[in-house]
Amino acid sequence: MSQKINRSTLKLSSSPSLISYAAVAGKKESEGPLASYFDILYQDNGIGQETWEKAESMMQKDVSAKALDKGNLSAGDIDFVFAGDLLNQCVGTHYGLRELGIPFLGLYGACSTMAESLCLASIFTDNGLAEKAMAMTSSHFCASERQFRFPLEYGGQRTPTAQWTVTGAGCTIVGHSGTPPYVKGVSIGKITDFGITDINNMGAAMAPAAADTLKTFLNATGTAPTDYDLILTGDLGKVGSELLCELLEKENIEIRSVHNDCGLLIYDLKSQDVHAGGSGCGCGASVLCGYVLDKIKQGVYHDVLFMATGALMSPLTVQQGETIPGIAHLVHLSDTPW
Amino acid sequence: MSQKINRSTLKLSSSPSLISYAAVAGKKESEGPLASYFDILYQDNGIGQETWEKAESMMQKDVSAKALDKGNLSAGDIDFVFAGDLLNQCVGTHYGLRELGIPFLGLYGACSTMAESLCLASIFTDNGLAEKAMAMTSSHFCASERQFRFPLEYGGQRTPTAQWTVTGAGCTIVGHSGTPPYVKGVSIGKITDFGITDINNMGAAMAPAAADTLKTFLNATGTAPTDYDLILTGDLGKVGSELLCELLEKENIEIRSVHNDCGLLIYDLKSQDVHAGGSGCGCGASVLCGYVLDKIKQGVYHDVLFMATGALMSPLTVQQGETIPGIAHLVHLSDTPW
Repeated sequence: MSQKINRSTLKLSSSPSLISYAAVAGKKESEGPLASYFDILYQDNGIGQETWEKAESMMQKDVSAKALDKGNLSAGDIDFVFAGDLLNQCVGTHYGLRELGIPFLGLYGACSTMAESLCLASIFTDNGLAEKAMAMTSSHFCASERQFRFPLEYGGQRTPTAQWTVTGAGCTIVGHSGTPPYVKGVSIGKITDFGITDINNMGAAMAPAAADTLKTFLNATGTAPTDYDLILTGDLGKVGSELLCELLEKENIEIRSVHNDCGLLIYDLKSQDVHAGGSGCGCGASVLCGYVLDKIKQGVYHDVLFMATGALMSPLTVQQGETIPGIAHLVHLSDTPW
Repeated sequence: MSQKINRSTLKLSSSPSLISYAAVAGKKESEGPLASYFDILYQDNGIGQETWEKAESMMQKDVSAKALDKGNLSAGDIDFVFAGDLLNQCVGTHYGLRELGIPFLGLYGACSTMAESLCLASIFTDNGLAEKAMAMTSSHFCASERQFRFPLEYGGQRTPTAQWTVTGAGCTIVGHSGTPPYVKGVSIGKITDFGITDINNMGAAMAPAAADTLKTFLNATGTAPTDYDLILTGDLGKVGSELLCELLEKENIEIRSVHNDCGLLIYDLKSQDVHAGGSGCGCGASVLCGYVLDKIKQGVYHDVLFMATGALMSPLTVQQGETIPGIAHLVHLSDTPW
C-alpha cells in the first residue's frame, strides 16, 4: 500500500518492480550512441505502413508485444494499460493497443507520458488494484513534425534551440517479481507556466516544471541530489537542462554532477545535427526502457530519479499567443526494495 | 481500500462520496430541458474570450472554481486533479487549470473522460492516495466543430446521424463526507472496434464499447439492469442508444426500461435541431454534475450506473481510412454507502 508523504508524493511501500520492459527506435536513433540497447531498430521509419501515424501505432504494437514476450506474458495477464502519445487525440496509442483487449486508461501528458503512465501503473500495482499493469508511450519524428511544425516536404529551417523528436517507444510492465528495478516512490507534478512562448524552445518551457517537481520530491523525502546516482530528465535537451540546473542552483540545490537528460543521451549532438537534443514522449520512454532500466537491474545504478517533462501546448494555442505551460512527473527507481 | 472483483472492476469499499460538484453550460443548453440544473449558463458561447479554445478553458476554470466554492474548499485542499478534454493536446484543460496549482494527471479518453476521471479520482480517494481528488472535463461546440469537422463559417450540412457537441463542463470533487452521492464501484473499459468508419455516426462506433463494459460490470457484480434506477450513457445519442439496447438484447440483457443517455436528456430533440442528440465530453459531464448527482443526493435515484463512452479517432485517422475504436468506463453511484 502506498504511503502519502506529502500532497503529491507517494512512497510505494510494496516496492513494485518492472518485471519486463522493451524499447524500440528508428533510423536516426540506430545511428546514435544508444543503438545497441534497443530491442528493435527500424531501418525505415515508415515501418512498412502507409502513413507516419500508422507507423507510430505499429511501434506501440511492437513495443508492447516485445515487453510481453520478454516477460513471458500475454495481454491477458495485464490488468490495466496506461498509455498515451503526442498525436492529436492520442491515436498512436489507440490504434496501437486496440487488438490487445487490455482495460485501458488513456493519458495525455505530452512528453511527460512515460513518467505519468509509470507513476499510475506503479500506484495501481502497489495498492493491489492491478496484479500487473503496463505503462507505455511513443513518438515519431515525421508524424510530430507534420503535426506540430511543418510537413517534412517543406524543408523548414530549424533554430539552434529546436530539438529533434525521437522516433521510438518504450513499454514497461509493473508487477511484483522481487527483482530489480523497483519503483520506490512517485511524485505527481503541477502545471507550471513561466511565460515562454517560443515553440522552438520547449526545454525552457518545461525546465521550471522539472525544478518544481524535483524540489517537492526532495523535500518530501528529506533526500539530496547526491543520494541518487542519476537524476534523469526526459527531453529537456541542452537548453532546458542548463536552465533546470540554474533554476535549482538559485535555491542551493546542485544537481550537475548527477543530472543527465534522455535527449542528450540518445543522439551524438556533435555529429547528428539534432541541435539542442532529442525530444518527444518516445525520447524518455526509449532511453528509460532501453538503457536505464537494465543498468539498474545490473546494479550499475542504485537509485535513479526519472523525471519526464511535458509541454502542455498545441500549435493552435501558440498561434493564439498563449504561453507554454509545462509539467513534470517523477519516478524513483532503485536496485533495492524498501 | 478497493477490492478487485474482476480484472477491470473494483469495489470501492470505503464508499467515497462526491462532496461537491458543479456544471456549466452554453446558450443552446440554456434553451434545453435541463437549463435550470446548471450552476452557470453562458448566454454568449464566446464567454468573453477571443477564441473558442480560450472560451473552453474559461469553462473549466469556472466549473472548477464553482465546485470548490460549493464545497467551501480551496484549490489547496485538492490532492490531485484528473482531467482532459477533446481539443488537440487537451489544451482546454491545461489552460483552464494552470492557475490552480493542483498536482495534475492529464487524461485523454475522448468523450469518456468524465467517467475515466471520476473512476481514477474515486480509486485514489478510496485507497487513501488522495484525501480529496477532482475529476473534470469539458467540450465546446464551436471549438469542436472547427477542429473535428468544419469551421462554423463554412455552414456545412449535418447528416441525420450527426450529434451536436455540448458546450458545457462538469467538475466533481471526491472525498469522504459520509453523505451521498457515493461511488461504490468502477469498471474500466477496453478499446473496442466494430469497424465503423462514419465520422458522423459516433454513437454507433461507441455503442459496442458500452455494451462490453456494462456486461463486464454486471457479470462481476452479479447484478441485473433492474437493480439500478438508471443506466446512463454519456453521449450515444439516438442512434447509438438504440444500437446499445439491441446489442445487449442479443445477449438477453434488457436495459430499455432503465436506460437513458445524457445526449438525449440535455436537448429537446424535436425542437432544438440537434439531429441524433448531444455529444462531447461536456455532455456527460454537465448532465451528470448538473442533473443526476442532485437526484441521487435527494434519493430520487438510488443506484445509477454512469457510463461515458469515447470515440478514439482523430480527423486524420478517419481521412486515412481507419475505423473508429470506442471505449466506455463505468461508475456505480448510489445514495447509500456499502
